[in-house]
Amino acid sequence: MEKRILGLDPGLAILGFGAITCSQTPGKNSSTTVKMLDYGVIRTSADAEMGQRLCTLFDDLHTLIKEVEPDLVAIEKFFFYRMANTILVAQARGVMLLVLGQCGLPYVEFTPAQIKLALTNYGNADKAEVQDAVARELDLDEIPRPDDAADALAVALAAYYQVYM
Amino acid sequence: MEKRILGLDPGLAILGFGAITCSQTPGKNSSTTVKMLDYGVIRTSADAEMGQRLCTLFDDLHTLIKEVEPDLVAIEKFFFYRMANTILVAQARGVMLLVLGQCGLPYVEFTPAQIKLALTNYGNADKAEVQDAVARELDLDEIPRPDDAADALAVALAAYYQVYM
Repeated sequence: MEKRILGLDPGLAILGFGAITCSQTPGKNSSTTVKMLDYGVIRTSADAEMGQRLCTLFDDLHTLIKEVEPDLVAIEKFFFYRMANTILVAQARGVMLLVLGQCGLPYVEFTPAQIKLALTNYGNADKAEVQDAVARELDLDEIPRPDDAADALAVALAAYYQVYM
Repeated sequence: MEKRILGLDPGLAILGFGAITCSQTPGKNSSTTVKMLDYGVIRTSADAEMGQRLCTLFDDLHTLIKEVEPDLVAIEKFFFYRMANTILVAQARGVMLLVLGQCGLPYVEFTPAQIKLALTNYGNADKAEVQDAVARELDLDEIPRPDDAADALAVALAAYYQVYM
């Protein structure tokens, strides 16, 4: 049984994604292994109009989901620092949730603290510790770049631990 | 020359719309007249999942735009009272701006104070005064209901005064 999880780190200018596959070996000593499938970012230009940027997100997310064919989507819950930026992220998040709805995909959400706890057993871990855990768990030679893609793999792993382990 | 303006009052549970037509009589004593074309609301159920609610908004907005065929869209700029509600409205607004982008429609935005000023010459007018102005200007026998639809007609009129008068 193989399951695919697509992690998403929402944003308007840059939306991180990271996809993993979890497979269970059958038999008495059944074990679960997890592998990195793909990661990267969707970028939209600050020079473009808002409607155009949201169109890019919409189209690229649909393409991504067609390619990854996830069984589950994991989303990083965002926090609210500055109101103006919050509105932009929430608008992008609306388009993201629309696309998941159109594709009939279930999703789970994790706060940054929950993700840190899941990956490092420590809710106040710093970014480098989380990224090291992502690379170690997925057997990667390098820390995934940019940060948004590493964050997306991290939230996918958090979902893997909670849902499939 | 006839122009159609679609006014939108953004929301997740209830999104108000109000469409008007502005026509200019040709000749030396050229004058502009404005008429109500249609108004109403798009509702999404609080019982449905977020993705499903955003799908409803997306589909119904595309249908509405196909029916109205607006030349311009006017949007009421929303204000931020409670953070939780702001996020929900901003997510719905993201889907709304996506649809306008997909349809290639230009839009203008007005704050509530700008709308009040445009309709009553008084930025602190109360809701009833604005609604009376909407009914008078559009020659309606009754105040449009619900309030979200009346608000949408009001923002459409504000755009009419600014852009086509």
